[in-house]
Amino acid sequence: MVIGGDATGMSAASQARRLRTASELEIVVFERGHFTSFSACGIPYWVAGDVPERDSLIARTPEEHQARDIDLRMRTEVLEIDVAGGQVRACGLESGAESWTDYDKLVIATGARPIRPPLPGIDAPGVHGVQTLDDGQALIETLERTAGKKAVVIGAGYIGVEMAEALVKRDYGVTMVNRGAEPMSTLDPDMGALVRTAMCGMGIEIVSAAEVTAIRTGADGRVSAVVTTEAEYPADVVILGIGVRPETELAAAAGLPLGKHGGLLTDLAMRVRGHENVWAGGDCVEVLDLVSGLERHIALGTHANKHGQIIGSGVGGGYATFPGVVGTAVSKVCDLEVARTGLREHDAHAAGLQFVTVTIESTSRSGYYPGAANMTVKMLAERRTGRLLGVQVVGGEGAGKRVDVAAVALTAGMTVEQMTALDLGYAPPFSPVWDPVLVAARKAVAAVARRG
Amino acid sequence: MVIGGDATGMSAASQARRLRTASELEIVVFERGHFTSFSACGIPYWVAGDVPERDSLIARTPEEHQARDIDLRMRTEVLEIDVAGGQVRACGLESGAESWTDYDKLVIATGARPIRPPLPGIDAPGVHGVQTLDDGQALIETLERTAGKKAVVIGAGYIGVEMAEALVKRDYGVTMVNRGAEPMSTLDPDMGALVRTAMCGMGIEIVSAAEVTAIRTGADGRVSAVVTTEAEYPADVVILGIGVRPETELAAAAGLPLGKHGGLLTDLAMRVRGHENVWAGGDCVEVLDLVSGLERHIALGTHANKHGQIIGSGVGGGYATFPGVVGTAVSKVCDLEVARTGLREHDAHAAGLQFVTVTIESTSRSGYYPGAANMTVKMLAERRTGRLLGVQVVGGEGAGKRVDVAAVALTAGMTVEQMTALDLGYAPPFSPVWDPVLVAARKAVAAVARRG
Repeated sequence: MVIGGDATGMSAASQARRLRTASELEIVVFERGHFTSFSACGIPYWVAGDVPERDSLIARTPEEHQARDIDLRMRTEVLEIDVAGGQVRACGLESGAESWTDYDKLVIATGARPIRPPLPGIDAPGVHGVQTLDDGQALIETLERTAGKKAVVIGAGYIGVEMAEALVKRDYGVTMVNRGAEPMSTLDPDMGALVRTAMCGMGIEIVSAAEVTAIRTGADGRVSAVVTTEAEYPADVVILGIGVRPETELAAAAGLPLGKHGGLLTDLAMRVRGHENVWAGGDCVEVLDLVSGLERHIALGTHANKHGQIIGSGVGGGYATFPGVVGTAVSKVCDLEVARTGLREHDAHAAGLQFVTVTIESTSRSGYYPGAANMTVKMLAERRTGRLLGVQVVGGEGAGKRVDVAAVALTAGMTVEQMTALDLGYAPPFSPVWDPVLVAARKAVAAVARRG
Repeated sequence: MVIGGDATGMSAASQARRLRTASELEIVVFERGHFTSFSACGIPYWVAGDVPERDSLIARTPEEHQARDIDLRMRTEVLEIDVAGGQVRACGLESGAESWTDYDKLVIATGARPIRPPLPGIDAPGVHGVQTLDDGQALIETLERTAGKKAVVIGAGYIGVEMAEALVKRDYGVTMVNRGAEPMSTLDPDMGALVRTAMCGMGIEIVSAAEVTAIRTGADGRVSAVVTTEAEYPADVVILGIGVRPETELAAAAGLPLGKHGGLLTDLAMRVRGHENVWAGGDCVEVLDLVSGLERHIALGTHANKHGQIIGSGVGGGYATFPGVVGTAVSKVCDLEVARTGLREHDAHAAGLQFVTVTIESTSRSGYYPGAANMTVKMLAERRTGRLLGVQVVGGEGAGKRVDVAAVALTAGMTVEQMTALDLGYAPPFSPVWDPVLVAARKAVAAVARRG
């Protein structure tokens, strides 16, 4: 039995079905929403109009899953898990009918939900999260209905930044209100400053170090402004881009183990710790950060899909594990590509690591080749050992996915000196003769030697 | 003392100068050509007109080097190395004056030269190699002088393919005559076939499995056709893209050790084996292939620069090593990106390895994101161990540099199963939720399991 019919849940169900026939294994999935297997990451591009159709974000429809012998029960919300009894209580959202269903094996894939701080007016019409296709649909309907063209995005993580760009494309005047010093808090502030410059260039007003205290509503009850301790920003629509929390209330009520970020804790095979026949994965679990050795919560479709694959193998009687993450993420802001992997300075400090940092400027292609774009690479290496700890990249086309090289190097536990010898693809349309990542590694080697 | 003032030689000289002042270390460089530190890899793009200026291919001029206390002697050819006596005999090409010069430490960076098979007519005007800026200049002059617009490219490696495209851009009718079954012999034929399709789409005529027997000349003594055992192809200009050989005649005459590809053999610090005070690097040496354990000759600017850096460290009293290569290369053919790393099927057989191969189709971005390009990934994994052996990629924009992920994984000795857990950057503008390299790795895991 699977709770949640998105990336993790449906990947798990599909993989289990590949390993076991319908006569060997009955698979029931409860999904409270209207959709399955959709790309939440694609919502900003749908809102922006880059992706014209909602349905192109759907990898597989409920009907396609049902045709593969998966008993998928849409619009059905699980209200309670009885772990000792091996059953769940679910409610049909259309009918209102409740019933208990037994399981031998349970998969919890309840995902995450946008953080909605308990501010006055936070539930007013016109305030939108962008976590589900239903959320996206509601936002687009608001945008189409609203006469005014002022938007405020609260929060400046990936989703906030992508949504700010999407709204600019829809001719909104966009203000981004951000608690941190710079947008893109997934980067160190010095790299985030590069993102701010690009966003200002797009006409986005960025308010940093700001604390939102209320959402103001107009006479019609709809949102009219976002209020901070310092000022007030008129808004016809407000986007919540503050981040997400694991959706683990059901699991908590059932007594399953949660970590300090509120996510379920699992073993390497994605089984909930202490429970042989309960698995969990995707946005509702915490994952091991292989660089810091600490647990993190990362809501990202690529992990959710991997988890589903591994859970499906386990449920189907196979074997696979998820060793952990190195914290890779990539995003696009206008023409700027923004990426990171491993630890930021803050993360490294928190993990008790001492380190050097270097930052270099280079180009995505040979300098003389048409379309060579500037890119900045920041690298963290451990003091003394020279072990790579993290890389951040901000630059033009071709910059972002270069972070993958560092992601693999982190996974392999390479030192920056080992990285300088990496045999990366070189030709003028693709890279300078020294790839920017290697230029950073060379500089990091020198910094490690100097620091001692 | 350095023989050769291109990538390796000048990188070595510069790095040694960074470590040692002019009073500590005198640095003499002999260069027989007109240029230093230029990008040979950029020549096709200069010929194509993508790079308008010859001088933009020059990273640093002779004057710039000389200003940094490097005694750079241009247009000076070394004729003999006396290893026992620690001296070289050189000749000023303008003056004709010869003299012996002593050295304490010698760096051999003589590069490579295009293979010119001993065919009738091979030295006729209109037959061009494209190894040096002088070669490129001569070719451009031929193209500007020649009324006819028919070109034949002999050979279908990277340079041949890039030159074919460059000539199409200059409105030439291009025939590529190739000994192999498919163009791009650096790929397996099944992947090369994808390149052939793209080249044919550009209007390039491809003659495969053809043996050139002669270059025919006209009444004016200039090239008029390329003759094979089967046919004759009219030509106003002929490009030799058959590959290059290490330029090691001097070294061979001096009794220095050469490998089976004709390149100098060095230790890990790039010192010529058995010679404490002689270093060699770049296109004139053989390098260790870390995947096969065999020596290879790879003429590529990125290795040449790394070698120079390492040699300069050694000469300057520092320490660095070059562990070897995994055989990464990337190229662009029209809108197609072509890349490889590790072993092809042929290489793996030759190294005594048993393996499985898988090929998958995916897209460079999320399928629903604008500009998502098709890409094909082929992966080789060792039988039983599942160790990654090689990856080949052919696809649209964003495909080529993905091979870097596999290059790092090869360096780290990862298995394809370990690769399936890699935390690569994901967002719709950059990748499907499963990166194509990971899709291939998943399929390879299954193939290894089936093969046993």
